[in-house]
Amino acid sequence: MIKNFSRTEFFPIKQKLDLNNLIKDFDDFIVDSKIKKNFEIKDVSSLDFFRKSSLVFISSDSHIKNLQSDDLCIITNKKSNFNFDYNNVILVNDLSESYNSIINHLFYHEDDISFSDDFIFTNGSHISKYAKISDNAKIGKNCVIGRGVEIGNNSIIKHNVVIKNSILGSNVVISDNTSIGTTGFGFDFKKRGAVFLNPQIGIVYIDNNSHIGSSCTIDRGKIDITYIGKNCMIDNLVHLAHNVILSDNACIAAQTGISGSVFIGPNVTVGGQSGFSGHIKIGRNVTIAAKSGVTKNLDDYSTVAGFPATDIKVWKKNIINERKNRYK
Amino acid sequence: MIKNFSRTEFFPIKQKLDLNNLIKDFDDFIVDSKIKKNFEIKDVSSLDFFRKSSLVFISSDSHIKNLQSDDLCIITNKKSNFNFDYNNVILVNDLSESYNSIINHLFYHEDDISFSDDFIFTNGSHISKYAKISDNAKIGKNCVIGRGVEIGNNSIIKHNVVIKNSILGSNVVISDNTSIGTTGFGFDFKKRGAVFLNPQIGIVYIDNNSHIGSSCTIDRGKIDITYIGKNCMIDNLVHLAHNVILSDNACIAAQTGISGSVFIGPNVTVGGQSGFSGHIKIGRNVTIAAKSGVTKNLDDYSTVAGFPATDIKVWKKNIINERKNRYK
Amino acid sequence: MIKNFSRTEFFPIKQKLDLNNLIKDFDDFIVDSKIKKNFEIKDVSSLDFFRKSSLVFISSDSHIKNLQSDDLCIITNKKSNFNFDYNNVILVNDLSESYNSIINHLFYHEDDISFSDDFIFTNGSHISKYAKISDNAKIGKNCVIGRGVEIGNNSIIKHNVVIKNSILGSNVVISDNTSIGTTGFGFDFKKRGAVFLNPQIGIVYIDNNSHIGSSCTIDRGKIDITYIGKNCMIDNLVHLAHNVILSDNACIAAQTGISGSVFIGPNVTVGGQSGFSGHIKIGRNVTIAAKSGVTKNLDDYSTVAGFPATDIKVWKKNIINERKNRYK
Repeated sequence: MIKNFSRTEFFPIKQKLDLNNLIKDFDDFIVDSKIKKNFEIKDVSSLDFFRKSSLVFISSDSHIKNLQSDDLCIITNKKSNFNFDYNNVILVNDLSESYNSIINHLFYHEDDISFSDDFIFTNGSHISKYAKISDNAKIGKNCVIGRGVEIGNNSIIKHNVVIKNSILGSNVVISDNTSIGTTGFGFDFKKRGAVFLNPQIGIVYIDNNSHIGSSCTIDRGKIDITYIGKNCMIDNLVHLAHNVILSDNACIAAQTGISGSVFIGPNVTVGGQSGFSGHIKIGRNVTIAAKSGVTKNLDDYSTVAGFPATDIKVWKKNIINERKNRYK
Repeated sequence: MIKNFSRTEFFPIKQKLDLNNLIKDFDDFIVDSKIKKNFEIKDVSSLDFFRKSSLVFISSDSHIKNLQSDDLCIITNKKSNFNFDYNNVILVNDLSESYNSIINHLFYHEDDISFSDDFIFTNGSHISKYAKISDNAKIGKNCVIGRGVEIGNNSIIKHNVVIKNSILGSNVVISDNTSIGTTGFGFDFKKRGAVFLNPQIGIVYIDNNSHIGSSCTIDRGKIDITYIGKNCMIDNLVHLAHNVILSDNACIAAQTGISGSVFIGPNVTVGGQSGFSGHIKIGRNVTIAAKSGVTKNLDDYSTVAGFPATDIKVWKKNIINERKNRYK
Repeated sequence: MIKNFSRTEFFPIKQKLDLNNLIKDFDDFIVDSKIKKNFEIKDVSSLDFFRKSSLVFISSDSHIKNLQSDDLCIITNKKSNFNFDYNNVILVNDLSESYNSIINHLFYHEDDISFSDDFIFTNGSHISKYAKISDNAKIGKNCVIGRGVEIGNNSIIKHNVVIKNSILGSNVVISDNTSIGTTGFGFDFKKRGAVFLNPQIGIVYIDNNSHIGSSCTIDRGKIDITYIGKNCMIDNLVHLAHNVILSDNACIAAQTGISGSVFIGPNVTVGGQSGFSGHIKIGRNVTIAAKSGVTKNLDDYSTVAGFPATDIKVWKKNIINERKNRYK
């Protein structure tokens, strides 16, 4: 799985800014700051993957030792973090609001009214002049292929497909009316509404030989990647939320929804209309029956059913018990 | 929440007709009639909101006192209603068939083969010449914006979006491949098929700062409005049926479906893949867990889970009990 | 219900091939063969319906007597079948791989990078020059109507609809953003990925007066037909998998998914968010409550609810029992 990508291919920098200027510009909501080593801000990092010259927004209570790099700047709402011996650290009151303001200030992005893909109308589809499409790929009609998108050899994009903020490998198929690289459902629950959406500046990466059905929605990562591994089979009307990681050979039946940041190991099979709680980890070679609601991590090679999902043998016994109890 | 709108901006009148002419034209299925005060028919009303110079179709068994206005005409299949002292009342045999015939006779509408939006192709999208789009709104590619649609300041319509029969406020975002203002699923269960669909001549109203995800379907009201309040966050693949009222600050996770005429109070949060029975009322600040099936009204500040949805603490206890029982 | 259709109207023959040539060309994976009566291969048959001059792929353990026609050739991976007295029979090791290779060799199809619909841009939609659309039908904007598609009198195709490999009768309505005739989710579970997809060379047949909602996905048959009968009402975001047979007057509420090869009898009503196991048979006049998971055949006139779906009275009793048990 790739971790790095060039963010600015998708989300151009609005304006150059270094840490000292950041502190001046956002004076209003910055409580305190310590900058030992000023740098020009080039990127943003999650705690999973550190990018050069980037900001890292952390709400975690305990300081994180491996963040003492010269070219990172921590932005935190926790005093305990601020007091730790980081090279660069900024204390704010409201972390979600700070993220929104700073990212909207730094990057153009897709939910920004001033953002432009610079489309060229080509064979019945709108393709950004900043997209890189293999000569051997095939694009249907009424598609929209946004800025920065890459599409590999022999991939087939059918009709009325929207692909933004995404990299597709070779032999990938995307079926009709599907949306790839859409905005993740990320916002502060206490402050709802379109203008308060957390800027979603990650991408979707779909690896070689994966097949995505019709009317699917695959949200891009917030900062990192939503990943679909090699040889995955995804049926129709499936929803993958931001930062989902689907390892190789996944098979996901129709109308399943996978919540944000779920990790799914290799060779997993998921029945239709299943759902997943966010941030859980599914092991390798797991089988999940249709209509399951998976609420917890699942071990390798497990087979589950029901909601909350449990071992399928237990689930079946339970149904038999229920039927017995009815006639008591 | 607005209640009134100008129906003919969306559904033009096919022909002028007064009550006396109506009775002549529909002689076949009219059983009896009493017209004290003839008027030219301008509109149709539900029992929730009375419009000037309108018809009101009622199947209710008891007469409704506040319908004695000069410029309303009751159409009913109940003798008891007909006998009540209304100013204008028409008795019919089959109310659904009468509604279909009369509305199809009076109004052009979207499911009518002769209906035209008069589209103009503009920057890659088809926009009716009868749409009113703010100069500050942004419309993506391959969109269709139908007759009468209004889109407010700074609203963003992404790509491959279809919006018909709808009014959108300011700062609204509609994501890719979503359909707004589609035909409600309204018909007589005993008479199925496309040509027997009850004409759906209401609209969708989306208030300021609401965010609608990708591949959602939001049906217009039958006679009145399907309403989405201010600052609502709606995830991908969500279905809202006709006449749903979603109050301010709703948060609806992916793949949820809300049946016709459900009322949802302010500050409600709904987990993914939830469903609702029609015509129920959800109080304010209610939280509904993912995969719930809500079958009854819910009190303010309640938190529910399961199907049929119950208090979440009860639901959890029940699951623990089930697990105990298994091993008995 | 029609069973036959002209496959080559949708999927043109790539190259003429008779049985003897087939054996030469696929020497690699053919184990043995007996050809008594050579013929030019024109088609493929399922076990449900035999077409002239066709191949029949069978994995079944017992030979099937009515396959002794002159113009059929059995391809099987079972020795017992090979030894039976068929006129023409070919023994292979891997039936799924043989199907893929032979069909991809014989037919152009929609998932094939070299396939072309020869679209003509007409009134804002892309229509194959090989489509047959009634003069009285109405096609909205941004639609794609593929090769071989037929659309009958007074049918209405709304906006951003994709229709491929399908025949639509008269008075059919297809709502916005719906995909008809998409690729079925058919592949060997042990060999996943887009390039290993079993070629889906069947069609969708939608009979007169049926209404399909928005953002639905209806997959074409693998070899035969996915059928939607007369006067069916299908709500939004419904998924019908390959080879589903929906008899007349079906009513399917939103977000329901019907798995491959399910047969549904006439006058069936299905609540929203229901799901079905594959290959089951639902009788006539059955009612299925919302959110049901139907796992078994259902008798005529039954009413079921829950997952696994049971008689609705039993389901209700069970819920009452559960509630009692909680307070023990």
